[in-house]
Amino acid sequence: PNFTLGTMQSAAWVSAEDGGGGGGMEELATEKEAEESHRQDSVSLLTFILLLTLTILTIWLFKHRRVRFLHETGLAMIYGLLVGVILRYGIPSTSYHNKTPPSCSLKEGPVSTLLLNVSGKFFEYTLKGEINSREIHNVEQNDMLRKVTFDPEVFFNILLPPIIFHAGYSLKKRHFFRNLGSILTYAFLGTAISCFVIGNLMYGVVKLMQVVGQLTDKFYYTDCLFFGAIISATDPVTVLAIFNELHADVDLYALLFGESVMNDAVAIVLSSSIVAYQPAGVNTHTFDASAFFKSVGIFLGIFSGSFAMGAVTGVVTALISFQYILHCFPLLETALFFLMSWSTFLLAEACGFTGVVAVLFCGITQAHYTYNNLSEESTKRTKQLFEVLHFLAENFIFSYMGLALFTFQNHVFSPIFIVGAFIAIFIGRASNIYPLSFLLNLGRRHKIGGNFQHMMMFAGLRGAMAFALAIRDTATYARQMMFTTTLLIVFFTVWVFGGVEIVWSGKLILISHWVEALQCTVNHTTIVQVIKTHNTSDLYFFCFRVGVDPDQDLQPCGDSFQVLQGDGSQQEGQSKTKQESAWLFRLWYTFDHNYLKPILTHSGPPLTTTLPVCCGPLAHCLTSPQAYENSEQLRDADSDLILTDGDLTLTYGDTAITANGASSSSGPKGLNGKRNGSTSEEALERELDTREQELLSRGTRLVFPIEDHA
Amino acid sequence: PNFTLGTMQSAAWVSAEDGGGGGGMEELATEKEAEESHRQDSVSLLTFILLLTLTILTIWLFKHRRVRFLHETGLAMIYGLLVGVILRYGIPSTSYHNKTPPSCSLKEGPVSTLLLNVSGKFFEYTLKGEINSREIHNVEQNDMLRKVTFDPEVFFNILLPPIIFHAGYSLKKRHFFRNLGSILTYAFLGTAISCFVIGNLMYGVVKLMQVVGQLTDKFYYTDCLFFGAIISATDPVTVLAIFNELHADVDLYALLFGESVMNDAVAIVLSSSIVAYQPAGVNTHTFDASAFFKSVGIFLGIFSGSFAMGAVTGVVTALISFQYILHCFPLLETALFFLMSWSTFLLAEACGFTGVVAVLFCGITQAHYTYNNLSEESTKRTKQLFEVLHFLAENFIFSYMGLALFTFQNHVFSPIFIVGAFIAIFIGRASNIYPLSFLLNLGRRHKIGGNFQHMMMFAGLRGAMAFALAIRDTATYARQMMFTTTLLIVFFTVWVFGGVEIVWSGKLILISHWVEALQCTVNHTTIVQVIKTHNTSDLYFFCFRVGVDPDQDLQPCGDSFQVLQGDGSQQEGQSKTKQESAWLFRLWYTFDHNYLKPILTHSGPPLTTTLPVCCGPLAHCLTSPQAYENSEQLRDADSDLILTDGDLTLTYGDTAITANGASSSSGPKGLNGKRNGSTSEEALERELDTREQELLSRGTRLVFPIEDHA
Repeated sequence: PNFTLGTMQSAAWVSAEDGGGGGGMEELATEKEAEESHRQDSVSLLTFILLLTLTILTIWLFKHRRVRFLHETGLAMIYGLLVGVILRYGIPSTSYHNKTPPSCSLKEGPVSTLLLNVSGKFFEYTLKGEINSREIHNVEQNDMLRKVTFDPEVFFNILLPPIIFHAGYSLKKRHFFRNLGSILTYAFLGTAISCFVIGNLMYGVVKLMQVVGQLTDKFYYTDCLFFGAIISATDPVTVLAIFNELHADVDLYALLFGESVMNDAVAIVLSSSIVAYQPAGVNTHTFDASAFFKSVGIFLGIFSGSFAMGAVTGVVTALISFQYILHCFPLLETALFFLMSWSTFLLAEACGFTGVVAVLFCGITQAHYTYNNLSEESTKRTKQLFEVLHFLAENFIFSYMGLALFTFQNHVFSPIFIVGAFIAIFIGRASNIYPLSFLLNLGRRHKIGGNFQHMMMFAGLRGAMAFALAIRDTATYARQMMFTTTLLIVFFTVWVFGGVEIVWSGKLILISHWVEALQCTVNHTTIVQVIKTHNTSDLYFFCFRVGVDPDQDLQPCGDSFQVLQGDGSQQEGQSKTKQESAWLFRLWYTFDHNYLKPILTHSGPPLTTTLPVCCGPLAHCLTSPQAYENSEQLRDADSDLILTDGDLTLTYGDTAITANGASSSSGPKGLNGKRNGSTSEEALERELDTREQELLSRGTRLVFPIEDHA
Repeated sequence: PNFTLGTMQSAAWVSAEDGGGGGGMEELATEKEAEESHRQDSVSLLTFILLLTLTILTIWLFKHRRVRFLHETGLAMIYGLLVGVILRYGIPSTSYHNKTPPSCSLKEGPVSTLLLNVSGKFFEYTLKGEINSREIHNVEQNDMLRKVTFDPEVFFNILLPPIIFHAGYSLKKRHFFRNLGSILTYAFLGTAISCFVIGNLMYGVVKLMQVVGQLTDKFYYTDCLFFGAIISATDPVTVLAIFNELHADVDLYALLFGESVMNDAVAIVLSSSIVAYQPAGVNTHTFDASAFFKSVGIFLGIFSGSFAMGAVTGVVTALISFQYILHCFPLLETALFFLMSWSTFLLAEACGFTGVVAVLFCGITQAHYTYNNLSEESTKRTKQLFEVLHFLAENFIFSYMGLALFTFQNHVFSPIFIVGAFIAIFIGRASNIYPLSFLLNLGRRHKIGGNFQHMMMFAGLRGAMAFALAIRDTATYARQMMFTTTLLIVFFTVWVFGGVEIVWSGKLILISHWVEALQCTVNHTTIVQVIKTHNTSDLYFFCFRVGVDPDQDLQPCGDSFQVLQGDGSQQEGQSKTKQESAWLFRLWYTFDHNYLKPILTHSGPPLTTTLPVCCGPLAHCLTSPQAYENSEQLRDADSDLILTDGDLTLTYGDTAITANGASSSSGPKGLNGKRNGSTSEEALERELDTREQELLSRGTRLVFPIEDHA
């Protein structure tokens, strides 16, 4: 409801008029109308709040009773559906008057601002949108339905940013960076493939509909491509929600989550590039090479621009938080962090880039650098703040989706299109995952297994992003049909695929329950548990960190969580993981570790040890005193090259235990004096993999895996 | 900028049109315009974000360098002013076209929705407001200035609620409840007196202006009263901010803060009652008894309605959080708490009451009941969440104030009115404080001293509430003049009064610094420090809780902080404080403690001990198992009747020490086995004040002060 403000302003204005001058009955009526409208705004927002409250209470009940077959996002949708049905059919038209609003004619096209001259007084009006001629007579009717229909831009500018930022912020995983190549391949190439496959298939469906006479309006090829773009975005929200809770395999998680986060960004930019495709001349829907390349250019421009924008503001925040040691004032730190993240969004929008994409990269940068500069109190606060925002926004979007199925006024249900779309997204997803996995497996040491691929195939839930992109623009017949179809696809994938995923990972649930029960008992202390379940054919090693969020990896153990693939090739896969990191990545890592981290955070090695001797004075002036302290005991949670897969390091309280069969008995615990994460891991690693060479890079130790010539 | 949505919607719509059909140059132009408008929206929001960022960094610098002469709100205003000057004079008109928007004529009065017929297509327009005829030609000009001008309702519906809620939530102080009678007297009677005094004085000023020919438009008596109402609201924001930081005398703080919070509520309702004063008949600005009583009725109705609404939703939240023990899921708890608080606001607005007032009482109720039901993790999270929201909203409002002085387009500077207003608010405040203090002193045991009264007189800063009420409606000439004057009054009081207050309390600053330095060193541990400063004529006892918020009173010590008035009557004032609580309050306290707390929270005594025996089964069914556990060791932080003033209990770590000269040496620490707050205080008290009688009220001990017949 446009944040309930528009109508209230006019209310205030009218009442002012009324208090100041001669109030006629007419003005009084307008005032009443405005008041009524404001009241309805409040009621509609209240509906959503109560919906969310109900969802939260039910989530609690589900968690409490260990009900697992339905995820909270699915639940929010069901509640939304129910309320939608009630609003649609249960409530009689609450219109306060049924007269058609006055109209006036103009020859020119629609303008954004219109003046109304009422006997010498001028009033300003703003454009709200076009309305169907059949709806003119009930513009003021069905107020309640209209009220609960949000401005689509609310989703893009208020609800998506915290979700996406949170996703980016949660990507601080060594597994993400290690799988970066694969993730980018899936995200860019995969989304493009999926978009074109779906677009072409849907064009076929549209042609079919034309033949059987089911299509009543225009539906162009670009529309089909647009549909392909919006529906290719798999949803990090649901993936995060379901897999995070199931404590699934980190590699699968990193690939899947990374892919779904990145392909959201790709989908946004792709869809706006497709919209921007406007061939010159009269015949606007034929292929035009120059327009096509312009679109490609727009894609590259917007994407790289948004990326740069996000990365730069992230770095600026890191620099500010590096310079200003706000440790004594966690409130200021948190507020600053929040504001800087939001300004990224606005800055990108102001420059014509995509705010959501910029926010994603800002989140990743912040997690990588700024996070290390914040005080412990602030990191907790910041994380909790974004957690709450993300939780509320996510559940709001999903309950709104449920609601929209009944309250949205211009649904176009086309059975052929819907069935076609379902088939197309399957084929599209398959032609993304399987060929690319094959190609990637050629280069990857740690192959992406068959089961893995099937899982990825079905984990491609559609969610908030597809919905937000679809609802952003529902002006034409084609777009309305797309919106309806998207909504149904989201429902289906979240309920059915989500359920399938949960059943698939069902083996984990029991353990998950057990851990949760433990969590409640032990109440906010950090325990790491190893559970070996022998009753399934696969061998699972679990390393749960209870009461600690999975994206907080101060404990080195959290990331060495590893599910060994039960295909008989455990040992093979295990040893090959080590060589995952590509040389390009290794190069970047060295640069980041030696130069960026020291400049931007307090956690890297001192610059004096990493820069050439000639830059000594500069290095001295850029290095903070803390860096010297840190240089000894690097709290380097994301030292991605120190690979510990296959090993399990257990920290129970302060004591580190290793649990890896025979090798752990000859534990190298005496080797290092320090007990903190990386050194203990290093020690283990040194023992287990002697092929690795230690590079003492000017005082700071970097453990490089050397190509094994086996 | 109406949250940047209105214009973007049209942008989306236009581009949709464009993508779907034949795009003419005209539509393309509209699209460009909409894009430009969206960009400017982003830039204007970005301006505010950067302003806030700058403010935060400067606050940090001030705190770091121990600069104290200017408060952060004053700082935010200065930055706002600077940016306002730049926007006003520094930037050339950024208008993208200078043409006057098309207008059309209608005979009827302004309607909220207007249809525009452009060659068969219908477009919907919504009313934005009236514009001056002199402004018609630059409606589209000065876009930047227009963009940074927010919809006034943003203040009321987005920025004020968190501030007021936080204020209410922070009122969980025994000192507040003990001074409730005085606070309500100041808030209701005092605000009414102030409103009428200022209103009448201003009416005199207006008459004078008419005589000297300075008044160019109508200015009625009701307008003067309205001005009196809006300017009578003293600001909890500034009071909270300045005094909280200075660790001032708790009694002064409780009185002042309580009064300023409550009188905000009174001022809102009062001003809307004055607006609602509409005598029947033609002559609308004469006195009409029936209309007057209707206004009084509206005042009472809205106030009690909002109060009831806030209290009821608070109680409902308490019940929900009591039933649903969400302790394992702090995220759910926090989200629930946030949503329930917000729904209070919306519910009140939906019922036609005042949301802000309802939120205030909801905050108080939540702090009293719900707070006790939350898990430790959640209470911390919730408090931090509202802290951040409050901090951001507060600084935003103050920087907007600075900005508005230059960017608001319809300022009416009238020197006579401004000077008159300054004198009037002094007289109004004085006629509130001094007579009422005299009357209250007749009934109070612990007199409100002369210094105390002067301090209250000058602590009456005007801030966010006055501003929000003034900007809410700037349609008429009179209201514009009021707005300008209010803005200047806020500037003056915050900068000058705030500064005076700080200097006045200057003695405290040094110590405050010292404590802060300690705070940084000790880093988040709770220490309580007693500082005895003998170098001033007054004797100060300080009991700082470092690193712990002043409104978190789990430590009993935090509230026994006491500055003894240096009027030579220390001993007298000290002993008389004890009899502050009125019988009505005591009655309510007993009821609350024995029945409400057990039903609504887990922290009261079990109902089985407080209810009559006949209600046994009911009591059993309503009492939670925790209550039995708690009954022994009541964590009763707000057991207001257990008075400990004049004594200083020191808890350093786990050890309780008393520091009160001779009496402490014969400490009664052996008396009670338990070391937790209230019992230790009780013990102290029993020793020091033998005139108090213990009432063993059905198993739960309530310590009642009995009138001392001295």
